[in-house]
Amino acid sequence: MPTSLDPEEGLAFTPKFDANGLVTAVVTDAANGGVLMVAHMNEEALAKTIATGEAWYYSRSRQKLWKKGESSGHIQRVIEMRVDCDQDAVWLRVEQKGPGACHTGRRSCFYRAVPLGQIGDVRLEFRDDEKTFDPKAVYRDIS
Amino acid sequence: MPTSLDPEEGLAFTPKFDANGLVTAVVTDAANGGVLMVAHMNEEALAKTIATGEAWYYSRSRQKLWKKGESSGHIQRVIEMRVDCDQDAVWLRVEQKGPGACHTGRRSCFYRAVPLGQIGDVRLEFRDDEKTFDPKAVYRDIS
Repeated sequence: MPTSLDPEEGLAFTPKFDANGLVTAVVTDAANGGVLMVAHMNEEALAKTIATGEAWYYSRSRQKLWKKGESSGHIQRVIEMRVDCDQDAVWLRVEQKGPGACHTGRRSCFYRAVPLGQIGDVRLEFRDDEKTFDPKAVYRDIS
Repeated sequence: MPTSLDPEEGLAFTPKFDANGLVTAVVTDAANGGVLMVAHMNEEALAKTIATGEAWYYSRSRQKLWKKGESSGHIQRVIEMRVDCDQDAVWLRVEQKGPGACHTGRRSCFYRAVPLGQIGDVRLEFRDDEKTFDPKAVYRDIS
């Protein structure tokens, strides 16, 4: 029988962090359901996001906690947060402030399609790839 | 200037596999935009998914390639596949065959919400958690 501590059927939030202390965060646009980005959260990023209702992540490349929008102003207000069956991934439905979520200047990080039915070298196709802001102007204080 | 081999601005599909040879796969329901599951793909799972238009993954726990639905019949037909800016994650919009994607018997793996505005112990809340199939009947051949 499931118990309250059963990670799949219980009510206890017991995130299953990987070897680097991270869970995967999938971020979708509450306005249209599209995936904006995939990021990672450590325990502190999770706690700050839950406490404030604004999205915080952990940057693997910069090895630091960051608040989404801290440089760009493009913060994410979390409308709903969910956790998956084995608690190693969370899904955030967000209200994306400002023109976009991607550091390349697009609304979503997923601006290229992988065509199906191919074997061998795959050529991507740009889709929904309009730049909605100038990343050089927005992120000029980041190396 | 971006070149065709620029991972962010180019047309070459050059997946950035992690130390375990995997990329993250986010799977959304083409019918309603909800996130069904988060899984992982190695090079072979990616190639099979692209070639066949049906979703293949790599199971970290079982350490093997698997076709979604190979036991349950709940296959996923890929409507569109996208890759993110740094090519370490893909997004699959799928037509989910059968009643659900989650091994617990639900349509989505994300059937519990993490309430916001809390500090300290977090109690999950079940949402959209109706069991649409009996996992014991569907997965009886899997240990």
